Amino acid sequence: MGLIVMKFGGTSVNGTERIKAVAEKVITKRNQGNKVVVVVSAPGDMTDELIESANKITDTPDERELDMLLATGEQISVALLSIAIRSKGYDSISLTGPQAGIYADTTHTKARITKVNPQKIISELNKNRIVIVAGFQGLNPNEDIATLGRGGSDLTAVAIAAAIKADLCEIYTDVDGIYTTDPRICSDAKKIDWISYDAMLEMAGSGAQVMQARSIEVAKKFNVKIEVKSSFNNNKGSLISSREDSKMEEPIVSAITFDKNQARLTILDVPDKPGVAAKIFGALAKENINVDMIIQSSAREGYNDISFTVTRVDLKKALPILKQVSKHLNAEGIIFDDKIAKVSIVGVGMRSHPGVASKMFEVLARHKINIEMISTSEIKLSCVIKEKFVDTAVRSLHKKFIG
Amino acid sequence: MGLIVMKFGGTSVNGTERIKAVAEKVITKRNQGNKVVVVVSAPGDMTDELIESANKITDTPDERELDMLLATGEQISVALLSIAIRSKGYDSISLTGPQAGIYADTTHTKARITKVNPQKIISELNKNRIVIVAGFQGLNPNEDIATLGRGGSDLTAVAIAAAIKADLCEIYTDVDGIYTTDPRICSDAKKIDWISYDAMLEMAGSGAQVMQARSIEVAKKFNVKIEVKSSFNNNKGSLISSREDSKMEEPIVSAITFDKNQARLTILDVPDKPGVAAKIFGALAKENINVDMIIQSSAREGYNDISFTVTRVDLKKALPILKQVSKHLNAEGIIFDDKIAKVSIVGVGMRSHPGVASKMFEVLARHKINIEMISTSEIKLSCVIKEKFVDTAVRSLHKKFIG
Repeated sequence: MGLIVMKFGGTSVNGTERIKAVAEKVITKRNQGNKVVVVVSAPGDMTDELIESANKITDTPDERELDMLLATGEQISVALLSIAIRSKGYDSISLTGPQAGIYADTTHTKARITKVNPQKIISELNKNRIVIVAGFQGLNPNEDIATLGRGGSDLTAVAIAAAIKADLCEIYTDVDGIYTTDPRICSDAKKIDWISYDAMLEMAGSGAQVMQARSIEVAKKFNVKIEVKSSFNNNKGSLISSREDSKMEEPIVSAITFDKNQARLTILDVPDKPGVAAKIFGALAKENINVDMIIQSSAREGYNDISFTVTRVDLKKALPILKQVSKHLNAEGIIFDDKIAKVSIVGVGMRSHPGVASKMFEVLARHKINIEMISTSEIKLSCVIKEKFVDTAVRSLHKKFIG
Repeated sequence: MGLIVMKFGGTSVNGTERIKAVAEKVITKRNQGNKVVVVVSAPGDMTDELIESANKITDTPDERELDMLLATGEQISVALLSIAIRSKGYDSISLTGPQAGIYADTTHTKARITKVNPQKIISELNKNRIVIVAGFQGLNPNEDIATLGRGGSDLTAVAIAAAIKADLCEIYTDVDGIYTTDPRICSDAKKIDWISYDAMLEMAGSGAQVMQARSIEVAKKFNVKIEVKSSFNNNKGSLISSREDSKMEEPIVSAITFDKNQARLTILDVPDKPGVAAKIFGALAKENINVDMIIQSSAREGYNDISFTVTRVDLKKALPILKQVSKHLNAEGIIFDDKIAKVSIVGVGMRSHPGVASKMFEVLARHKINIEMISTSEIKLSCVIKEKFVDTAVRSLHKKFIG
């Protein structure tokens, strides 16, 4: 007897055949004696199609209305899944995010969950019903529907699991779990049986695509156990939980990650005066451009080169801003490179094992891969390299640290 | 300065180009100095497509969940329309039926509106916003979404117009207004400038497709003026209002209507005993089969033939029930004819003008059209004839009574 949250992504509910397959999975879980809450995303590409419809009307659709539009996708999924489950003779009820007691702030299209009132979900569970909740959406203080942005359905699932104190939050996806690196690049990649919140957070932050960092953060805060697993088979997935939860010691290096969605910008010969960095990064922050690594180097006396990385999407937004700032600061000019990538090694064990960094540099040097930027955290080590070297770097680092 | 409800059907909001055209119509109305509430249906065939998805899963989808599913169609329409209006620089807000204060009973897929709380609509109008409400849906006492069945968006529009005491409820459709008969069959058909609720009710009940009877009933009860007009041009439409409202006297015959969706059933040689009719029609009522005309004739002493009409859809449901009842009553058997139709003349003036019926029979006789059943009300006269005679009957009756 457990209390389980099961979350299915858009691929898993794309079309009636797949919805029926999800219904079977849910019913099996229920028949194993569990109380079950299901969270689903919009079917397949529906969210993108709805955005496209809005963009045919205007390039800048009103965001409150866009959320009203997008929320229909998940509503269709929950209704069809409940129809499928009920057609098999099981009792279920579908709920929109607002009906399920998911409250959000007023930041339309990327709202944060402010509160989960699980009363309705619990009372329906107590009627022995399977409760099916629309992911990605909540009710904001204006009583409008707000959507939660990328990874929003995962967030809904984890937040509900926290609110109802679920024993487990299962994230069903199109891969078998979390891998030590991307199996498409490195055939040695292994499925991870267990990983701590902290290591998973660094993985998500350094390019691993499986789950978004903010869902992991909520899971960590409320100690929600997550299992990432495939919706297309019955294999055991990967468990994410607190370090106290595991009997094992964590490996020195858990995973090798990479992020090709990176570009580097450099402002050349910036006069070395106080407040220069604040001007540059203040201007970027004002336009919501996230800067990742920053390096300042002194090229000649009294002048600095300032390099930093942004996503490639943000590069286009950053360039005109930087040109203005550069002019204003009497800098020499701007150069950029959008053919770079970030390769990282992530592992909680790194904390107590010195020498990991030098091993990483050795491996890259042996393959004649030049390191252009370096950044470190307690449990992560990232190097910016040329994009063309990514596959080689990932494979050789994986061989060295994971095997 | 008026307070206007504008209702647009599915054809009018099918695709972004049409939605933009509706936005222009709404903005024009607003710029004429009116406060405007807009009610819209789901785009084009979306409702049918959603029903088809559900039917791919099961033949008998749960109705509460079906309503959850179907309500998304109108939500997409209101969001896109609000995006279109806002992109033109006007302030608007879209509301689901529940958000707009539309309350319904628990009869899923064909709920009745129980109450409209217009507070939200009025407060948004007072912010000088154009308010856009999803038709066809409301919130039921279980806090579930319920849909209102066929013609539900018209009903939403009329109910809101009643609740906010609108000066006019405009129903935009793909025809120019209400015609004296179907222009596709009779080229002499004329647009009606004004028609009373009572005559319109009889028209709707006898096959005219423009508006459903229940919206007219609500309009009559709360004295809501309705104008039926085209969403594709700016022509004046047809006004529906109370008889006191018009300076004109109503014509003897307002319209010729017909209904091809009719079938006749006859139970032969039913022993003439008390309670027989109750048994037959009780059994049909239990299965929600609506019976229209009923005729009882005595074929031989002590036995009756009982004939009645139902819609062709209901014929299939009625047959097995009747076979059982017929056996139980020791009747001779059942015959049916699904190639019949009902032709009606409707007019409030008929009340004070005797002789209309005999004129109708004369016209049909002159064209050698056999009358198989007759039913009359104060302001309507209906004859069941063979379906193949419908066009001739409609044209000659139109010529005789309307010209």
